[in-house]
Amino acid sequence: MAGKALWSGRFAEGMDDSTLAFTSSLDVDSVMAFYDVMGSLAHVRMLKQCRIIDADDADSITRGLITIAGQLRDGSFEWDENLEDVHTNVENTLTNMIGKAGGRLHTARSRNDQVATDYRMWLRDAALEAVEAVDRLIKALQTVAAKHRDTIMPGFTHMQHAQPVTLSHHLLAHAFRFGRDGDRFLDALNRMDRCPLGSAALAGTTYPIDRKVTASLLGFKEPTENSMDSVGSRDFVCELSFDAAMTAVDLSSICEELIYWNSQPFGFVEMDDRYSTGSSIMPQKKNPDIAELVRGKTGAAVGSLVNIMVTMKGLPLSYNRDLQEDKHALMTSIVSVTECADMLSKVVSTMKVDENRMLKSTNDGFINATDLADYLVTKGLPFRDAHAVVGETVRYCIENRKTLDSLTLEEFHRFSDLIDEDVFQAIAVRSCVDRRDSYGGTSVASGDVEAVLSESALMAREDAVRTKKQLIANCWKELLGERLPTVRL
Amino acid sequence: MAGKALWSGRFAEGMDDSTLAFTSSLDVDSVMAFYDVMGSLAHVRMLKQCRIIDADDADSITRGLITIAGQLRDGSFEWDENLEDVHTNVENTLTNMIGKAGGRLHTARSRNDQVATDYRMWLRDAALEAVEAVDRLIKALQTVAAKHRDTIMPGFTHMQHAQPVTLSHHLLAHAFRFGRDGDRFLDALNRMDRCPLGSAALAGTTYPIDRKVTASLLGFKEPTENSMDSVGSRDFVCELSFDAAMTAVDLSSICEELIYWNSQPFGFVEMDDRYSTGSSIMPQKKNPDIAELVRGKTGAAVGSLVNIMVTMKGLPLSYNRDLQEDKHALMTSIVSVTECADMLSKVVSTMKVDENRMLKSTNDGFINATDLADYLVTKGLPFRDAHAVVGETVRYCIENRKTLDSLTLEEFHRFSDLIDEDVFQAIAVRSCVDRRDSYGGTSVASGDVEAVLSESALMAREDAVRTKKQLIANCWKELLGERLPTVRL
Amino acid sequence: MAGKALWSGRFAEGMDDSTLAFTSSLDVDSVMAFYDVMGSLAHVRMLKQCRIIDADDADSITRGLITIAGQLRDGSFEWDENLEDVHTNVENTLTNMIGKAGGRLHTARSRNDQVATDYRMWLRDAALEAVEAVDRLIKALQTVAAKHRDTIMPGFTHMQHAQPVTLSHHLLAHAFRFGRDGDRFLDALNRMDRCPLGSAALAGTTYPIDRKVTASLLGFKEPTENSMDSVGSRDFVCELSFDAAMTAVDLSSICEELIYWNSQPFGFVEMDDRYSTGSSIMPQKKNPDIAELVRGKTGAAVGSLVNIMVTMKGLPLSYNRDLQEDKHALMTSIVSVTECADMLSKVVSTMKVDENRMLKSTNDGFINATDLADYLVTKGLPFRDAHAVVGETVRYCIENRKTLDSLTLEEFHRFSDLIDEDVFQAIAVRSCVDRRDSYGGTSVASGDVEAVLSESALMAREDAVRTKKQLIANCWKELLGERLPTVRL
Amino acid sequence: MAGKALWSGRFAEGMDDSTLAFTSSLDVDSVMAFYDVMGSLAHVRMLKQCRIIDADDADSITRGLITIAGQLRDGSFEWDENLEDVHTNVENTLTNMIGKAGGRLHTARSRNDQVATDYRMWLRDAALEAVEAVDRLIKALQTVAAKHRDTIMPGFTHMQHAQPVTLSHHLLAHAFRFGRDGDRFLDALNRMDRCPLGSAALAGTTYPIDRKVTASLLGFKEPTENSMDSVGSRDFVCELSFDAAMTAVDLSSICEELIYWNSQPFGFVEMDDRYSTGSSIMPQKKNPDIAELVRGKTGAAVGSLVNIMVTMKGLPLSYNRDLQEDKHALMTSIVSVTECADMLSKVVSTMKVDENRMLKSTNDGFINATDLADYLVTKGLPFRDAHAVVGETVRYCIENRKTLDSLTLEEFHRFSDLIDEDVFQAIAVRSCVDRRDSYGGTSVASGDVEAVLSESALMAREDAVRTKKQLIANCWKELLGERLPTVRL
Repeated sequence: MAGKALWSGRFAEGMDDSTLAFTSSLDVDSVMAFYDVMGSLAHVRMLKQCRIIDADDADSITRGLITIAGQLRDGSFEWDENLEDVHTNVENTLTNMIGKAGGRLHTARSRNDQVATDYRMWLRDAALEAVEAVDRLIKALQTVAAKHRDTIMPGFTHMQHAQPVTLSHHLLAHAFRFGRDGDRFLDALNRMDRCPLGSAALAGTTYPIDRKVTASLLGFKEPTENSMDSVGSRDFVCELSFDAAMTAVDLSSICEELIYWNSQPFGFVEMDDRYSTGSSIMPQKKNPDIAELVRGKTGAAVGSLVNIMVTMKGLPLSYNRDLQEDKHALMTSIVSVTECADMLSKVVSTMKVDENRMLKSTNDGFINATDLADYLVTKGLPFRDAHAVVGETVRYCIENRKTLDSLTLEEFHRFSDLIDEDVFQAIAVRSCVDRRDSYGGTSVASGDVEAVLSESALMAREDAVRTKKQLIANCWKELLGERLPTVRL
Repeated sequence: MAGKALWSGRFAEGMDDSTLAFTSSLDVDSVMAFYDVMGSLAHVRMLKQCRIIDADDADSITRGLITIAGQLRDGSFEWDENLEDVHTNVENTLTNMIGKAGGRLHTARSRNDQVATDYRMWLRDAALEAVEAVDRLIKALQTVAAKHRDTIMPGFTHMQHAQPVTLSHHLLAHAFRFGRDGDRFLDALNRMDRCPLGSAALAGTTYPIDRKVTASLLGFKEPTENSMDSVGSRDFVCELSFDAAMTAVDLSSICEELIYWNSQPFGFVEMDDRYSTGSSIMPQKKNPDIAELVRGKTGAAVGSLVNIMVTMKGLPLSYNRDLQEDKHALMTSIVSVTECADMLSKVVSTMKVDENRMLKSTNDGFINATDLADYLVTKGLPFRDAHAVVGETVRYCIENRKTLDSLTLEEFHRFSDLIDEDVFQAIAVRSCVDRRDSYGGTSVASGDVEAVLSESALMAREDAVRTKKQLIANCWKELLGERLPTVRL
Repeated sequence: MAGKALWSGRFAEGMDDSTLAFTSSLDVDSVMAFYDVMGSLAHVRMLKQCRIIDADDADSITRGLITIAGQLRDGSFEWDENLEDVHTNVENTLTNMIGKAGGRLHTARSRNDQVATDYRMWLRDAALEAVEAVDRLIKALQTVAAKHRDTIMPGFTHMQHAQPVTLSHHLLAHAFRFGRDGDRFLDALNRMDRCPLGSAALAGTTYPIDRKVTASLLGFKEPTENSMDSVGSRDFVCELSFDAAMTAVDLSSICEELIYWNSQPFGFVEMDDRYSTGSSIMPQKKNPDIAELVRGKTGAAVGSLVNIMVTMKGLPLSYNRDLQEDKHALMTSIVSVTECADMLSKVVSTMKVDENRMLKSTNDGFINATDLADYLVTKGLPFRDAHAVVGETVRYCIENRKTLDSLTLEEFHRFSDLIDEDVFQAIAVRSCVDRRDSYGGTSVASGDVEAVLSESALMAREDAVRTKKQLIANCWKELLGERLPTVRL
Repeated sequence: MAGKALWSGRFAEGMDDSTLAFTSSLDVDSVMAFYDVMGSLAHVRMLKQCRIIDADDADSITRGLITIAGQLRDGSFEWDENLEDVHTNVENTLTNMIGKAGGRLHTARSRNDQVATDYRMWLRDAALEAVEAVDRLIKALQTVAAKHRDTIMPGFTHMQHAQPVTLSHHLLAHAFRFGRDGDRFLDALNRMDRCPLGSAALAGTTYPIDRKVTASLLGFKEPTENSMDSVGSRDFVCELSFDAAMTAVDLSSICEELIYWNSQPFGFVEMDDRYSTGSSIMPQKKNPDIAELVRGKTGAAVGSLVNIMVTMKGLPLSYNRDLQEDKHALMTSIVSVTECADMLSKVVSTMKVDENRMLKSTNDGFINATDLADYLVTKGLPFRDAHAVVGETVRYCIENRKTLDSLTLEEFHRFSDLIDEDVFQAIAVRSCVDRRDSYGGTSVASGDVEAVLSESALMAREDAVRTKKQLIANCWKELLGERLPTVRL
């Protein structure tokens, strides 16, 4: 049966059991219990400081909450499923523990501002973890790239052999993408770094509270500016959902490549046994399941983004119960993206690269044709004309089943007199790579520059994460009095 | 540590524990265990009939599977989380129970066709339940509508008072929508009513199986036509996801109305105490939480649809591990929509309707203006001119804070000489309603016709559901030998 | 400046120009002009028949509308951009042409039911065209499949070589998918085959109209049952949007394959020059742009589906201006999917298949390993044990760089004594294919069966489309009096 | 017939006309023509400076491009629809104008980096305009808020009367939301502020270019770091699409409110005639169409976001033709959101507020119940107990059809002895507002603080926009030599 709700006074009849089951948020928001207690610890300290409740009551509440924090940490906290949410569970346990004074904790606040505060704190930690996972993946890519500074492979456009590139250059392209994904999370964190606590139900409170105190105790930059906005807006949920979905889309891109590179026709890489699975019917199979699952999970991440956007569409101010639907999707999505990034780090770090197969593959598809055109330009032809000459040369090769390298000088002369002995050097695959030494190009020299850029962007992000995590840890320490709990998501 | 996979022979190194955790589908697909066992029971009976395995082995497997079905029903089945999926769990338990013969069960099939079959069976039941819930909601709407055949309320367009309608007419509009939602589920069921079992990994099997036998034993119309399509397509998942999302969107529409009708400015309805909740801070509050949550859950339903569409986008044939991501979203969504329809049935059935407030509200907004125009048309004015005349009359009323009914004949004559004493009868709200007696219109007479149409569509759907459920129940009875299990989702 | 709106009587001040520009639907709904006129022709004929307007006026309106239909067909109709929508343009032109009687046309209807009727008629034609395009694609696939009944290629799961299949089997897998796409459109058409005309603004009308007459004149099965549902529901838009999006997702699947098959590492097919493009910088490039664009356009199709679902979320009854946003997305999407299917038909029909390369590719990846396991089962081993034996054999081959076919009998005996000379026949790639002759399997014999199934499903669908198109054509002929216009989308 | 493509040399057969029509991007990318020319002007200046082409050719190209820029501005540029894109059109016109030297312009670049550069420049301007429109809306809200510092209205949670608030406080809640929307656009602009030009097809170029020069000439902070990332990534498109969709969702929220506030049951506001429309059938109607359309267009904005995310899902590096589908959705969406914000500014600025109706509405729903509870707390009751007491008092009022203000002291005493004469002052609506003077609360005093915060955030954003726009204008001036073109979207 439904437990005693916090609000039953006005009701003639109790809530139906199905109503409790349907409206309860306990399964989702119990993961926020730790943050709920921290929020209450900050709140009561402020109430005391502002003399809204007396010191004895405040101290007793504080002791009770610290005990509950401990119970949550060691798993001994007893959840009552008949109480509709995490707040009611905590408050109820507190009142059972310390008596009537517990009833004073809810002074000058509402569950509306409370849940908004809890969720922001949970997300703050989750987003920091996501950034760290993305950064670990970047590091894995950088490490493999460093080993393959001059491993040559076909570069693709339209999934056609286009120009030769180094494996390093290819992997760092992904690293730069993921770097922006990490930065987006940090931007979102910065924007949501305001504390809603004290906004109360929707309109602020009549008690002489000091919201700057609670904001600071909980590690926020400042309080939110408008109480209705505080309890009724969820754009921070949407933004983080997008950041997670974007990361998932970027993950799907490299996974797509790994899956094909690992196929028999490509054979560029082989996944490690530890990160592959087999088939119940086909004994030979070794499948790149992790890359496939990560690619497949993009659906859930984009779906979660749509979920919250649809839920928010057309909602008036301020708090509506629809907002309860703001958690499951993003919580799942941000944790899943974090896990995906970590699994992919392992796959990337342990896969075997077949350099020979990669190099051999550059023999196909006239991958050095642009270099032949560029060669003709250095001999004085406008690029457009050079392009046309090479186009015809390639057609000749196709019809005669030859590669550009295997043509004789005589054959070349059918297409242009400007071609000389030095053409063979010019269109050798390695020199195609070496000569693309423009800023951001694929040459080994350019690659060294971009490795430094990638590394320094990573370090800046790691620094930001470390600073924020330290600040939060200090807050918890202060509120709990020396006892430093592990953050739990 | 990871349990022995079905496929470890070819691997030099075992799967990493994180790989098992990441790739395991056990949490999602364990709900399909019952169907997995049914599928195996049908499969082994066919293998025996086709003399692919001998009768003794077949009987022993059958007995084992029936035992497992019992364990699943009474909750005594022991899940091994180290085995990667439901199939491996069932097969392993079977082999432990009956010995080596258990190893013959997997002859002529693969997990690829097995999971496709299991999932279709699960969805078949889930979709039938969804239809039943939608039909219960329709019934609830019909019942309330029947009580309010002549309860008059403002009809809205652009959320402006437009023309008076009956509450019955308004509610039946929703009933017809939901009827199409139910029909869509049935169409999808019909389209997916083909059994993939026997498609094996992707290419069919070398054993002389008879797929029509298994299809029929499992209650399917026919086997699927192409083995690669069987294991690699999930359009039935997409279609049902859409059907659920569409239902959710339709639910959001009526919820939006109930929420506003329940607000102080409208005051048209009041939710029952049993299906409302209060506020932790505002003692007077009684909130229409259920309607809000149902509206909010539209996000998850649309998100789930996007999820599966994104996952499927750009996937080559045939089975890819991405497809494992086809379950969570739809399973959650279809069950949630079912639950939402049921909760809303309760809300609708128990809410108090304030007929007086509804009727009184029709005094606002010149809701009978069209009738004044129609009146003028009956006096010979072309409709366009009549429209213009009434427009000016309304402007006059606004400026003088009057309603149309309160104008004197003299005032009317400022705008048209065609207006006579009978105008007051013509623009009385009740006659506005009564005279809209065209097919599908809001008059009580038309309403009686549409009530019959709504009822008969419902009965046809209920009939289809009943027939299909009976067929499935008979299949289970046949496979289990008299013991009829309760279906579990 | 804004032209005279149909509703200005009540307004003190005219509409701002920016309001007209922002609210005008002319750009989108002008494509529905033909249907608007047809709807009016049916409406006026019914008004006359029911003696709501007199015969002279009716005939004069009819003649005017037929003239306008002609102007629309030959492009001479003059659009006035200052009139807010297609209805106003038509009615205005009519009144200018025939005088005051034109004002009687709008009796007993509203733009709300009018646009709902027009749009359903437009969509009916567009959906029929979509089905035809999908069917043409199926035919193209069937034709290529028929040429490649015994062309052997690797079948993939997890993008790994799994078991050999015929190209025909692979292509028909897509054909069955597309067949369901076509069927879905027909289901949707059937469900929306009801005419909203006469529902008027929202509540029906006070005039003694006969909605069954207009429904039948416009080729609908029946009138809609409830006037508020008629003007306020757009689930038919959502359903067709889903059908288009699903088709797009299915198109993306085969495009993904064609793109990779056309790549240098695969080399299975080569796109025809006419359906490829090149590069402005790389002279050798021949890119499969059409397949890429079709794959890329999946985004727009899924986006359009989300568009309409989001727009509908939380909308109360009955008509809201939000509904104006129901057209652009679906119109674009359904036309685009039609075009994509047609372009892909051309690509598929003209591409060169490299049978040798396909066959040669089956040498990789131990694609016959399952057959070796099946061979061992026929020798008496339970499948699970056979699977393990082959797994180890494959591992041996990998370590010694051999294929299964190249092992000696002695080598085989290291893994199982059950293996005999006949193994080499059993694991020959062609016999792997031939022996998968279960229903729906890849053998040539099974393939012939599925070709018949595919063909007969196609014919049933073509029949349904033909019948519906004929019915519509007859309606237009009847309404226009012998003059049969080409349908324009 | 298809015009001569830039890449026809290698092809035996020309492109089919349907291929040109299907693959052409001209309709979408012609709006980027201005930016394409600017990019070329910067490119040629750099080529000259790096001595890659000689000064004469460079100058001749420059003069030609400046002429083309002029033609684009005055509309005299002749588009050839048979040329597949904007780049080919510009290059072709140039070559026709200045001869062979035009062929040298494409040295060291590809259409892949060119379109990426053009699009970033287009988006930069579009995003700046979007921010300005959002800021104008904020200003409109601030202005109306300033007029209604002490206009009291019911504050809603769950669409139920909750606590009284000022209209100013309500409107500024939206202003803060929109402020974050604006900030998000600026973050995205900052992240994408890198120039891809010189990345060439995918791998950089063999010419000794200086990418920092072109980046700076085009107003970018720096060049992009990796050439494959440059041509293959579109996360900046996704991010801006999200920013637009988020803004649309926030717009839908205030529109929902305006639509209901404008309804007869609420009657809080009335839209101005200039920004309303009427009905073709109901003469009395004045509909809030703009707010409805803006709310409805949320669908397109969210759909566009999904569009690009789906298109990007699973795409390998580097350039794929799918990427051509990156423009239509975002271009439409960002321009539409800009327009919506501007239309809404007008609606908000001109609507009539009915202060009396708002104030009167606070009599309903026991909106001062929390204040009664707070009153009891000040008398010493723990909040939980006070809540319960008030709940029962409210129940009493409902049963006896009273409001809290109308109770006698005797009646109050049935529920608590702590209540005294001063209670009536405490629960007067105005004092409920005045006493919520916590930071961010609804009191007039708090409102003055938040008005300052809102204003200063706006000014910071306006500053950033102004600076960036000036920088870009200076770049164009420099490249065109004094002639300053109007930016065209």
